[in-house]
Amino acid sequence: MTALSIDAERLLGRLRDLGQVGRDSAGRLVRLAGSDADKAGRDLFVTWVREAGLDVAVDRIGNIFGLWKNDSGADRNPILLGSHIDTVIDAGIYDGSYGVLSGLEVIETLKSTGFVPARPLAVAAFTNEEGVRYAPDMMGSLVHAGGLSVEEALAAVGTDGTVLGAELRRIGYAGSEEPGFLKPHAYIELHIEQGPMLEREGVSVGAVETLQGISWQRVTIDGDANHAGTTPMSMRRDAGHAAARVVTFLRDRAGRSNTPTVATVGCMTFEPNAINVIPSRAVFTVDLRDPDEGRLQAEEGALAEYLQELADAEGVTVAVERLARFEPVTFDPRIVALVEDAARERGLASRRMTSGAGHDAQMIARVAPSAMIFVPSIGGISHNPREHTPDPDLVAGANILLDVATRLAAQ
Amino acid sequence: MTALSIDAERLLGRLRDLGQVGRDSAGRLVRLAGSDADKAGRDLFVTWVREAGLDVAVDRIGNIFGLWKNDSGADRNPILLGSHIDTVIDAGIYDGSYGVLSGLEVIETLKSTGFVPARPLAVAAFTNEEGVRYAPDMMGSLVHAGGLSVEEALAAVGTDGTVLGAELRRIGYAGSEEPGFLKPHAYIELHIEQGPMLEREGVSVGAVETLQGISWQRVTIDGDANHAGTTPMSMRRDAGHAAARVVTFLRDRAGRSNTPTVATVGCMTFEPNAINVIPSRAVFTVDLRDPDEGRLQAEEGALAEYLQELADAEGVTVAVERLARFEPVTFDPRIVALVEDAARERGLASRRMTSGAGHDAQMIARVAPSAMIFVPSIGGISHNPREHTPDPDLVAGANILLDVATRLAAQ
Repeated sequence: MTALSIDAERLLGRLRDLGQVGRDSAGRLVRLAGSDADKAGRDLFVTWVREAGLDVAVDRIGNIFGLWKNDSGADRNPILLGSHIDTVIDAGIYDGSYGVLSGLEVIETLKSTGFVPARPLAVAAFTNEEGVRYAPDMMGSLVHAGGLSVEEALAAVGTDGTVLGAELRRIGYAGSEEPGFLKPHAYIELHIEQGPMLEREGVSVGAVETLQGISWQRVTIDGDANHAGTTPMSMRRDAGHAAARVVTFLRDRAGRSNTPTVATVGCMTFEPNAINVIPSRAVFTVDLRDPDEGRLQAEEGALAEYLQELADAEGVTVAVERLARFEPVTFDPRIVALVEDAARERGLASRRMTSGAGHDAQMIARVAPSAMIFVPSIGGISHNPREHTPDPDLVAGANILLDVATRLAAQ
Repeated sequence: MTALSIDAERLLGRLRDLGQVGRDSAGRLVRLAGSDADKAGRDLFVTWVREAGLDVAVDRIGNIFGLWKNDSGADRNPILLGSHIDTVIDAGIYDGSYGVLSGLEVIETLKSTGFVPARPLAVAAFTNEEGVRYAPDMMGSLVHAGGLSVEEALAAVGTDGTVLGAELRRIGYAGSEEPGFLKPHAYIELHIEQGPMLEREGVSVGAVETLQGISWQRVTIDGDANHAGTTPMSMRRDAGHAAARVVTFLRDRAGRSNTPTVATVGCMTFEPNAINVIPSRAVFTVDLRDPDEGRLQAEEGALAEYLQELADAEGVTVAVERLARFEPVTFDPRIVALVEDAARERGLASRRMTSGAGHDAQMIARVAPSAMIFVPSIGGISHNPREHTPDPDLVAGANILLDVATRLAAQ
C-alpha cells in the first residue's frame, strides 16, 4: 500500500450536505424511499457522480450506479462499493450515506491519482434499504441479487397507500437497466457499526466476517381474565405472568451463554390491560439473532421447548407465529483478511466481528464475494439524530475501503 | 331460629326482572350511576319497596332507603341491609342487586309473618358503588359514612363529562335527606363472592370476616432503547426485561407464601414497542391485597426493596407512583359468628373468608358494626354476563340474611 488517502474534507463535506437534504418542517431527517426527499438526495448524489466523471446507470428498481470504466479491463466484472441513501424517520446522517459517499470518494481518489485498475470500479446506492415505507427492507439489493422479481418489488404498496413503481416514475428514478445487469467481481460495504462494540473496545475498524441470522416470532399466550382481588394465586391462569417468564428465560439463557446470541422482547401487550384484572392474553415478539445457523436453530428449539413446559405448568395456551427468518451470512474470508491487512498497515486497531443489523451486503453476498467494514458508533446509537461517528474514524474507514478496493481492482 | 324462610319465587323473580332493566341495544346490561338506565332500575326498586309497605327515603347523594318502622322501638337505630343496584358495563344480574333485593325480601318476609322487631329494619341501595362513570367507587356508602362530603361527591365529573349532581336531579334521585341521617345499629350485606373459593370447596355460605386492604402502584422503569441486533446482552439496559423480573418476583413471592396475599400485574406497556428495539421504558401496575395491614405493608416493603436491587443490578431507573391505598377492614366478629350459627342451623356448609373485592360494607363498617355474607360465584366470574349463582345458593344466602337480621332486630 502507498500512502494514498481519500480527500477527507470532500467526503465529510458531502456527508454533511447530504444530511441536510430531506429535512421535514420539524428539522427531522426523513428520506423515505420514493419520496420527494429521496429524489432530492438522489439528485445530489447523481450530481456528484457526474462531477467525478463517472457514468450514471439506473435500473428498473431505482438502484443508482456510478461506473468508472477505465480503458483497460473495461469488459471485466467491476469492484462494487456501496450502500443506500434512503433513511428512517428522524434519522442520523451516517447510516447508509457514509458507505455510498465513501465509495464515490474512493473511486474519485483513484481516478484523480492516475491509478490504472485491472477492472472497472463502481459505486451503488441501493433503493429502499430501510423498508420504512415499502416492505421488504434491503429491497434494491435483494432485487439486484435476483431474490425478488422487479415486478413484485415495483408493485409494493406503501404504508401511505402509494405504489413504489409509480413513485419511482414520479421522481424520475424508474431506470431502464435490468436489475442485476452489473455483475460485481466483489462487493464491499462500509457502514457505521450501529452497535457499541468498537467504541467500547477502543477499536477503529471492524472486519465484518458474518452477519447474524434473524428469527422473528410473535407469541400469543392465553389464560383467564379473573378478578385480581378474589382469585387465589394458586387458581390463576395469568397470561401476563407467563409472558414475563418467557422474557426472563430468554434473557437468562442468552446472558449465561458465551456465544454472540442476542435475544430481545421488544413488543408486549396485555389484555384486557386493567389494573384489577388478571391478564387473559399477552402478545409479545421474540427477536433471536446469531451468526451461526446451528446455534440460531438451537435457540429457537430451546424457546419452543420452554413454551411447551410453560403451557403445561401454568395452564395457559401458547401460539407462535413466525414473522421473519433469515439465515446468517458468512462474508468472503479473502476480503475480510484484506480489511484486517489494510488496518494493520495503517496502524489501526481492528477486530473481526459480526453484523447485528441487516445490510445490502447480505443480499449481494448471494451473487458475489462480499464483505463489510464497520466504524464506531458513539454509544451504539443509530436510527436516531444522535447517531454519531467521529470524523477521524469516518476518514479512517474510507481509507480502509480505498486500500481494499485498490487491491481488488488491481487483480 | 324457626323454619321461617323468604319467598324464593318472589326474590328470584325480582332479581331477573331487575336484570332486564337497562339493557342497551346490543342486549348488554348497563346501569351506570345517574343514567336513564339507573333511573329505570331505581324506579322499579322503589315500586317494590312501596308495595311492601315500607317508607321510602332518598338522601342528597341519591342513596335509597326502604324503612320498616314498626311501632315498638321505632326511635332506635335500625338494622340496615343493603348493597347497590348500579352496574358495570355488560354486567351480570347478581352483583349488588342480589343484596338489595334480598334485604327487601327479608323485611317483607318478617313484616308479613307478624314478627315484632325490637328496632326498625331498613334496606339500602347505595349510589354509584361501581365507580364506572364517576370516581370514586363505593361513593354513596362513603358519603353516608362521612368519608367524603356530599358536595364533593355531587361535583364529580363523569367519564362522559356529565356532573353527578345534575344527573341525579335529572333522573329525580337528588333526595333531601342529609347523608348519614340513618344511623345503623348494624349493617349486613349479602353478595355474590365474585371469586372461585366457595364453588371450588363446595361450600354454600361465606362468613366474611375481613375485607382485603388494597395497594395500587404504577411502576415506570427507564432503560436505553438500543438496536436488538447490535447490542450485546451484557451492555443492555432493557426496561422490558426489568419489568418482567418484577412480575416473576411478585408471583414467586405470593405463590410461595402461606398467606392470602395476592399480587397482580394487570397493565403493561413497552416503549417504543418495536420488534427490533430494546425497550427503553416499561410501565406497569401492581395490585397487592391482603386482609392484614401488617402483611400488606410488608409486601409493599419487599417490592420497594426488590425495585431498588433491580435498579442497581440492571442499570435502570425506577419510579413508583401510588394510585390507591385502602387499609384492610375487619368486620364485626359478633355478626360473623351469627352468620356461621345460621348456616349451621340450616345445615349449610360455611367458611370464614376474606373479601377480595371492595364493597359498600367496608364504608359502613366505619360507622356501624358490619359484616358480609357471600354465596358462590360459578367459575369465580363477575362483571361479566356469565356471572352466575345457582338458585338454591341464592335462596340459601337470603335465608341466612333473614336469620341474622331477625336475631339482630330482636335485640
